[in-house]
Amino acid sequence: MVGGGKGAFIGAIHRIAANMDGMIELVCGALSTSPEKADESGKMLFLAEDRTYHSFEEMIKNESQLPADQRMDFLTIVTPNHAHFAPAMMALDHGFHVVIDKPISFTLDEAKQLKKKVEETGLLLLLTHTYAGYPMVKQAKQMVKSGELGKIRKILVEYPQGWLSRLSEKDGNPQAAWRTDPERSGKSGCMGDIGTHAAHLAEYISGLKISKLCADLNIVVDGRLLDDDGNVLLRFDNGANGVLVASQIAAGEENALRIRVYGEKGGLEWAQQEPNTLILKWLDEPAQILRTGGHNLTNYAAFNSRTPGGHPEGYLEAFGNLYRNFALCLSARIDGSTPPEEALDFPSVDEGIRGMAFIDNVVKSSLSNEKWTNFEV
Amino acid sequence: MVGGGKGAFIGAIHRIAANMDGMIELVCGALSTSPEKADESGKMLFLAEDRTYHSFEEMIKNESQLPADQRMDFLTIVTPNHAHFAPAMMALDHGFHVVIDKPISFTLDEAKQLKKKVEETGLLLLLTHTYAGYPMVKQAKQMVKSGELGKIRKILVEYPQGWLSRLSEKDGNPQAAWRTDPERSGKSGCMGDIGTHAAHLAEYISGLKISKLCADLNIVVDGRLLDDDGNVLLRFDNGANGVLVASQIAAGEENALRIRVYGEKGGLEWAQQEPNTLILKWLDEPAQILRTGGHNLTNYAAFNSRTPGGHPEGYLEAFGNLYRNFALCLSARIDGSTPPEEALDFPSVDEGIRGMAFIDNVVKSSLSNEKWTNFEV
Amino acid sequence: MVGGGKGAFIGAIHRIAANMDGMIELVCGALSTSPEKADESGKMLFLAEDRTYHSFEEMIKNESQLPADQRMDFLTIVTPNHAHFAPAMMALDHGFHVVIDKPISFTLDEAKQLKKKVEETGLLLLLTHTYAGYPMVKQAKQMVKSGELGKIRKILVEYPQGWLSRLSEKDGNPQAAWRTDPERSGKSGCMGDIGTHAAHLAEYISGLKISKLCADLNIVVDGRLLDDDGNVLLRFDNGANGVLVASQIAAGEENALRIRVYGEKGGLEWAQQEPNTLILKWLDEPAQILRTGGHNLTNYAAFNSRTPGGHPEGYLEAFGNLYRNFALCLSARIDGSTPPEEALDFPSVDEGIRGMAFIDNVVKSSLSNEKWTNFEV
Amino acid sequence: MVGGGKGAFIGAIHRIAANMDGMIELVCGALSTSPEKADESGKMLFLAEDRTYHSFEEMIKNESQLPADQRMDFLTIVTPNHAHFAPAMMALDHGFHVVIDKPISFTLDEAKQLKKKVEETGLLLLLTHTYAGYPMVKQAKQMVKSGELGKIRKILVEYPQGWLSRLSEKDGNPQAAWRTDPERSGKSGCMGDIGTHAAHLAEYISGLKISKLCADLNIVVDGRLLDDDGNVLLRFDNGANGVLVASQIAAGEENALRIRVYGEKGGLEWAQQEPNTLILKWLDEPAQILRTGGHNLTNYAAFNSRTPGGHPEGYLEAFGNLYRNFALCLSARIDGSTPPEEALDFPSVDEGIRGMAFIDNVVKSSLSNEKWTNFEV
Repeated sequence: MVGGGKGAFIGAIHRIAANMDGMIELVCGALSTSPEKADESGKMLFLAEDRTYHSFEEMIKNESQLPADQRMDFLTIVTPNHAHFAPAMMALDHGFHVVIDKPISFTLDEAKQLKKKVEETGLLLLLTHTYAGYPMVKQAKQMVKSGELGKIRKILVEYPQGWLSRLSEKDGNPQAAWRTDPERSGKSGCMGDIGTHAAHLAEYISGLKISKLCADLNIVVDGRLLDDDGNVLLRFDNGANGVLVASQIAAGEENALRIRVYGEKGGLEWAQQEPNTLILKWLDEPAQILRTGGHNLTNYAAFNSRTPGGHPEGYLEAFGNLYRNFALCLSARIDGSTPPEEALDFPSVDEGIRGMAFIDNVVKSSLSNEKWTNFEV
Repeated sequence: MVGGGKGAFIGAIHRIAANMDGMIELVCGALSTSPEKADESGKMLFLAEDRTYHSFEEMIKNESQLPADQRMDFLTIVTPNHAHFAPAMMALDHGFHVVIDKPISFTLDEAKQLKKKVEETGLLLLLTHTYAGYPMVKQAKQMVKSGELGKIRKILVEYPQGWLSRLSEKDGNPQAAWRTDPERSGKSGCMGDIGTHAAHLAEYISGLKISKLCADLNIVVDGRLLDDDGNVLLRFDNGANGVLVASQIAAGEENALRIRVYGEKGGLEWAQQEPNTLILKWLDEPAQILRTGGHNLTNYAAFNSRTPGGHPEGYLEAFGNLYRNFALCLSARIDGSTPPEEALDFPSVDEGIRGMAFIDNVVKSSLSNEKWTNFEV
Repeated sequence: MVGGGKGAFIGAIHRIAANMDGMIELVCGALSTSPEKADESGKMLFLAEDRTYHSFEEMIKNESQLPADQRMDFLTIVTPNHAHFAPAMMALDHGFHVVIDKPISFTLDEAKQLKKKVEETGLLLLLTHTYAGYPMVKQAKQMVKSGELGKIRKILVEYPQGWLSRLSEKDGNPQAAWRTDPERSGKSGCMGDIGTHAAHLAEYISGLKISKLCADLNIVVDGRLLDDDGNVLLRFDNGANGVLVASQIAAGEENALRIRVYGEKGGLEWAQQEPNTLILKWLDEPAQILRTGGHNLTNYAAFNSRTPGGHPEGYLEAFGNLYRNFALCLSARIDGSTPPEEALDFPSVDEGIRGMAFIDNVVKSSLSNEKWTNFEV
Repeated sequence: MVGGGKGAFIGAIHRIAANMDGMIELVCGALSTSPEKADESGKMLFLAEDRTYHSFEEMIKNESQLPADQRMDFLTIVTPNHAHFAPAMMALDHGFHVVIDKPISFTLDEAKQLKKKVEETGLLLLLTHTYAGYPMVKQAKQMVKSGELGKIRKILVEYPQGWLSRLSEKDGNPQAAWRTDPERSGKSGCMGDIGTHAAHLAEYISGLKISKLCADLNIVVDGRLLDDDGNVLLRFDNGANGVLVASQIAAGEENALRIRVYGEKGGLEWAQQEPNTLILKWLDEPAQILRTGGHNLTNYAAFNSRTPGGHPEGYLEAFGNLYRNFALCLSARIDGSTPPEEALDFPSVDEGIRGMAFIDNVVKSSLSNEKWTNFEV
């Protein structure tokens, strides 16, 4: 693991998610750029002293020299966005598979280089768009794919949060500090951080691609350096229209990612805060409530849950599904076996490129007086 | 009553709403342009034969010649949009107060003439933006007004319906027929019919005015003549941003008007299909559930409900509130007394002009390649 | 109308409900036992002075001497429970149909006499068990009847309120005063007031009869004279078991009547505070959401609603349905026509007797050390 | 781990829960009474061959002879109820701490012996009443304890499931087979399996003890050997009344554990299927929505969650909390340090005895004609 030392949020999440199914063990780390903090964090996590590194370079180099059955199998990168690319490239170059927290990189160009490198090396890369790991999101995707909703006509996706309603980056909140800092986050704040999740979710479930968009990004809180809010009109490649709303100044909201997809025959609705429920609204029939572990589910939904119906699974299990599917593919590769089809379904470099392009395109559109900006990759 | 004969939807709603509080009685009608249907409908509604008219002209003329204590007090117009203006003007000219279903007229210019006429005559005009009649909508408005949410930063308003997911206007559905017909509905379909409700709700609750917008109107169902769907980016006069979505092809949705308003200190959420609940989401406190008939309500909420908490009031009561408040003002005028302040709060010509301007501006914006269109009245 | 003068709660509700569909007009009243209040209330309700009576005896006598086309068609009794019987009997004796708020009488014996009188006179009697008027309750009843849930196995019905959490009868709350007074309410408080609604709802939807019960009635608030809370184990005549909970000390609850009925194939759930939704939970299929005005409804549900799906109807409309169905039967009788089958479905003397027997039986059981008390009528 | 081999439900759950926080590692197992299945399961779980045992006796004996830093720290027992006692006693006798799935034993007497043994040895015992691990349940307990709701007056707890609506024990469902078998489950089916959870939750949150009860247990599905449904009237030691409903024939229900607790000043409501929400209903204020990771929470709630608000935690995390708190106490003991106060809060032998006594008392009451049975331990 690169990054994710004491006090970090997403590093701890990655560790729990990776741990959950007993398939993955944390064996080494370059957990902080501060040597003291790296050591302290390593100790806290029961790492061997000699595998508690002070930099990712040192780690990748040393690990690659260990015998194959002792060295780490893959590298997880949970640093701020600007520090994704270098360790990822170096890891791939040294033959390690890679897990990267989204967005995949700092620039679109880096994302393209990563794709090229992954194709050259044939290694696996997992991009942790967590929300694609929920069983009911998998279910939604499969239902759209099978045509149950008919041709998709409209997609409404929204991701309101309220935690940046104040200028918390000036109040010592480290999460706020790096996520609103162009040097570490990139050219967009809110859209890069959560807008990319929303865009990915829309494309993932619908199987469509955004073809053009019209963005209105805002810095609502005075003194902030990056957008903390935005609304985007969408057009998809089959002609469907849509709206994407992402905000970090929606005071009182927690993490209220929600999507609605409407087709000719019906619509579906999923909300991350009640993730085990998928509402199906039919044009000619009563609405139905699909539930994790319940009736009428596809293999994909069942494959990505662990408990019988009524035992709620949440964010950590969704995250765990990404890791587990990645691990299944990785161990199948090690065994020379074929992983189950359902395990192949995890986000990777293509999704990373779409995400970085989304950031580029919304920023470009927001600065433009033209209504529509073609979505260019 | 003009229009609203047998088979009409909104006419029956108006009659129940007007009836509800025992303050208003239907005494005469020009219920259909077909004499037979007018007579039949009059009989069905227990109208006196000599007050069952065959045209609004006949009705207004005859009624105005009856003694003051016998003639109708006001005229309700529930015809399609193209037939609002003529009876309204004639009624005002003959000294009758007027109730008009929204949108107020066929064109913005007519709306302006109506305003002028109302100002000249000093008569009352009620425009039935029903949703402004709900107690929890009144509550929301008063809370924003009193500053409890702080400065408003973002407004999300949506009105998805699914009933025009097919080309029902070709299938003998009379509602679909006139509402999708430019000759009777005007230059917009979905935005005129329900987008105006959403826009009114946003301005009503927030006390703000839309200052510019960016509209994407769509004809989703092949063969339709007017927009059946649309998404609009909004900017309000205090700098707040927003999104308005209205759709009649959101398959599986009923009448799912919903609004969220976010301020510096918190947000509120109201959904028409569960109208007795207002959710308050606070930046620094747990969310609260305000309820019709419950705790911490303003006078306005209490004034507009009839039952103790837990006895749900609905659409007809909201509609009834508009009529009741109008009737209270009207009878105060007759008595020479002062109506209660809360009764003064009903939509009228100004809201009618805003609605017609909204239609003009979204249509103009939708045809434009410029991102922003200034909201002109 | 007998009772329901200024300040009364349920009288005003009855008037709105009766008014709603334009079929019923209030023509006379004995609105209070205080002559001043009776006169004042009559004036407020636009009653003719000579039909504003000071006692029900005077009213029934005078009205019965008016010509048939002028006198009242039926009498509504909205007095406290102890004053139901006398005006009802006198009205029936003078040929007037009767509407009585529940419970039908003060004692079971009175209820039986009323039934006998109704049978002798052939007149109509409506008992206003309001909740049976909701469209989704009608739907639930018809679905059970048609066997869609299979044999019924379990019924959970609950009616928690919180408004008597304090000793409000000593604080000048007139509602609390009479409802907790054995002289006016009868031998039970909470169970008579709202337990009877819950019991009726269970029997109405399931089509079953309670055959034995085990009751635990409580006076929770010190100084109160009647039960303000109770829990009852139920056994139905087909062997199904159940639980009925009614409470007026469930602090924070409004009027949270809710019922769940489970059969061999699935269950249904309905909650009064969101009355337009009926949840169907299936053993082998995803749950479904039935909605007023929506898909897959029986005639009974459609017959008892006024608006398209998504326009919420509430308590007043449910109440209005009772009056409208009663009025349809009454006017069919006057016309000599046959009312629609759906209109025949309103509570009357049999339900009144069941309600009074329920009170007798829960009180008897509560005082007994035996577990089960047979439900005797 | 004893039990929990291939195909078992709760064994897998225990492993994920124990794994989750990286504090516990599975090192050995007697996973099945069938040697083949035990070996196969051991391999599947990456156990060392020499620590994959064929019986708990063998495992405890062998492990106790390993050096202290190599042998297992504690034993988890996830066998059917009849096979809890022997391994638990033997483990304690050999100095191992113990985790047991609920109910603690087959008989109340065994539970008492376990308590005695725990007291003698001073070892730790965790009884996995999972639902006590949810952060919002902790919150509820602390709020009651601090008096925010005032004196508790009424508790409604229910646990409806539908999975035994058919005679699945005859259809090859192994879960159904042992849970409905008196030889393996004990003297009660539904009440032992889930009624004990409900009873524990009521006592845990309220801090009260059931003092008497009146039970109606039912075998609803023909041919079943143990109760699959039941309703119980409750009286608590402070005089509060209550109802407990548990059913496994509530067709269409998943795992719908729900509790409501009403005090003098307000009530609270928690439902296991949406576990991150705790509704507070106040007598004099609007209701509030408390949320995991949100505002106004006690230390106990925060201590038992891992993610920021809006990232739902579920059943596995609640289960993980039990294990983590147990592990914190265990490692504090090893270190000689003091564990955080919040970690001490996990169910143990006293709760086990209450649970077994609950089973005894509801069965006794159900067979009695007396209304009330004193809760005897």
